[in-house]
This record gives sequence, C-alpha cells and structure tokens, in this order.
Amino acid sequence: MEIGFYLYPGMTQLDFTGPYEVLAHVPGARVHLAAKSLDPIESDSGLRILPTVTLADCPQLDVLCVPGGPHVDALLKDEETLEFLRRQGAHAKYVTSVCTGSLILGAAGLLKGYKATSHWTSVDMLKAFGAIPTAGRVVRDRNRFTGGGVTAGIDFALTLVAEMVGEKTAKMIQLATEYNPAPPFEGGHPDVAEPEIVAAVSAVMQERLDKRRAAVGAAA
Amino acid sequence: MEIGFYLYPGMTQLDFTGPYEVLAHVPGARVHLAAKSLDPIESDSGLRILPTVTLADCPQLDVLCVPGGPHVDALLKDEETLEFLRRQGAHAKYVTSVCTGSLILGAAGLLKGYKATSHWTSVDMLKAFGAIPTAGRVVRDRNRFTGGGVTAGIDFALTLVAEMVGEKTAKMIQLATEYNPAPPFEGGHPDVAEPEIVAAVSAVMQERLDKRRAAVGAAA
Repeated sequence: MEIGFYLYPGMTQLDFTGPYEVLAHVPGARVHLAAKSLDPIESDSGLRILPTVTLADCPQLDVLCVPGGPHVDALLKDEETLEFLRRQGAHAKYVTSVCTGSLILGAAGLLKGYKATSHWTSVDMLKAFGAIPTAGRVVRDRNRFTGGGVTAGIDFALTLVAEMVGEKTAKMIQLATEYNPAPPFEGGHPDVAEPEIVAAVSAVMQERLDKRRAAVGAAA
Repeated sequence: MEIGFYLYPGMTQLDFTGPYEVLAHVPGARVHLAAKSLDPIESDSGLRILPTVTLADCPQLDVLCVPGGPHVDALLKDEETLEFLRRQGAHAKYVTSVCTGSLILGAAGLLKGYKATSHWTSVDMLKAFGAIPTAGRVVRDRNRFTGGGVTAGIDFALTLVAEMVGEKTAKMIQLATEYNPAPPFEGGHPDVAEPEIVAAVSAVMQERLDKRRAAVGAAA
C-alpha cells in the first residue's frame, strides 16, 4: 500500500505528522513524502522536515493526502502542484486532506460534487470549488476523506485505517498511541468555545482569511 | 522564553510534533530542537527532522522537553544525553516529557521523589528511578510535567501553556488547532479498550518491553 503526503513550504506540520504517525503503522504500508524537490520543507512554525521523493518520481499512490496550512493561497493556482494532485487523484483509491488541504484539492478539481470539510474558518470557501461544505471532524463522501482543522488529522487517519484495513488495526494503533484525549478545556471548536476566545482567534486570523477568500475566488 | 526539545534517533515523532505545534504558537517563545549533531534525526517510523542546535550550543532552556520512543533503552546509560539533561534540568523552569521520555528524565535523576507518568506500558518502570509512578494523561508535580503516551503530548502542552502564560492563550491555541477530539473508537487506554485489543497490542510489544525493563533495571 503506497501512502503519500504532499509537502510544501508553510504547511502546518501537525496536519501531516498526526496522520503520518497513524498511517506509518499500518502493516505493509510505505509512506512517501512528496515535494517539488528533496530540500527540507519548512512548516509555518519553523519545523524542517525532509521529503522522501520528488513529485516527478512519486509512484502512483493508493492514498493521497494533502495537509493544510495558513498560507495555502499560493498553491491554489500553482500548476505544478495541481497537475501532481490531478494525476495522482485520478487513480488513487483514496483522495484525502486535513485542514485547509481541502482547498488545494478543491482547486485541483478533485472535490467537485463531493461533501468535504476544512478548518472551521474556511469550510464555507469549499463551495467556490464546487464541493459541498460539510461540518464535521472527518467527512467522507465515496473515496474522499477530508479532516477538519489540524488535530482532526488524527481522527481522520484512524477512520481511514479502519476503512482500509479494518477496525482491529485502527484500534490497535489508537491504543498504541494512547489516543484517549483529555483536552484541558472544552473549546476546540467555535460551537463549544467561549465567545471571547472565538472572537480573539477570529480577530488574529481576519486579515489572512480575507486574503484566502480572495485567492479562492480568483482560483475557482 | 526558550523552549527546547531533546531529539534523538528512534524517537516517536508525534511525541514531539504534537507539543511542538502548541508551544511554537506561544507569543514570544523560541523553540530549539537540540540534538547531538545537526544531522537529520530519523524517527522510529522513518520521518526525518532537522535539529536546530547541538547539545553543546543549546542555550539554557526555560522549558526542557524529552519525547519518548520505543527504543529509549540505549539512552538510559548514555552519558552525553544524561549530562545534557542534568545541566539543563538544574536551571529550567519546567522539566517535562511525553511518553517514555520520562524514563530518560528518570535515568538522569530528574524525577527522584516526583510523581510522573509515561506510556501506559511503562509507567510502573519509573519506580526504578525513584519517581512515583502515577496514572494520568498529564501529571504535574511542582515543576515537573509528564505526559502519557504519544498523543497525550497535545494535552500536556496545552496544560503547560495555561500554566506558563495563562488560560486565554492556551484556549486560543486549542481553538486555532481545532482540538476538539472525536476518536472513532473509545479505546485509547487499556482502561477503556476491548480486552482483545489490549492483548493484541501487549503481545506485539512484549519483547520490546522485556528488554526495556532490563535496561531500566541496569541503568537505575
């Protein structure tokens, strides 16, 4: 089973490293980290990760996964990225994303007519690409699996493993990674967060979201 | 605020990347990835990450954090590692770990007389180092914060941020990373997992755990 993540500068590393930890433990899986070159990829928070294969050399993937990031705008019209995703997405068994990675899948035309989700700030933007924006931590529509923001990647990956190789393997990985979460606060989504916290995060993100909305409109 | 992770070959990358994502978003924080050299560190699952500083050049840290991994045995008697941790731990404001990283802190003598936790398979081994093994996803005793297995690192980091800079910042990071977990199964800890799954994971790990117990005994 060939599992591949598309890595790019400015991605949010936990969008990728969460599902990586889960998927790398699937028996028989080979995980590829595909990027434009083999140079280190620097995440939005400064972590540098080494890709394993270039886009040109990447084998056909069974699972294609695109992580998100705060600066996906530049990728929405990046032909090298979109061509890679279209080529892989046409034959992958599962076409997937975490967080705003779904906007990149959308820009590549891979979510047209599919229910999909994204980071809570951006899920409505999927409509511009013909997707059906759908709230949810993990949203499945046929062979499209999209996860919500950042940490949703762990829930997404366990759900995908259960689908691909069965619940027993998924449950074993969940127990081995001690995924029995106990967040210190109940506020990881606007539906349950304090209004003051939602307002504070929205204010910090507003400028970036305005730019993203414009970039999505231009790319669609 | 200087925050540092000790990176080493064979570590479990999510033990580190989970808390990294949280801590890197603390305003004013500088995050250091300290290793014996600046060569890429390969995780137990094959992910290659670049350190930012050598042990010798690492500034005094306010937060020292040691991730775990399946192969910590070799570090329990590794003088270069233990010397670094003792030197940093003597003056750090917070001495912390995720998963079996607590065994390394223990081997360095940094948990003597402290309540601490670890991956569920290994928490009892802390006793050999004079720690007080304590069940819990995040265990605090004075300035020691230890997290449980792998994914507990996210809960640990949010708890630490709330302590260091206040609940508002922690809640904002939790909302920005959409940490509103919804595991597909209720089985991330032996207390809640199906007995068949606990038995299957324990069987896979048995040999490794026997070796670890022997290495802990030898180091203590």
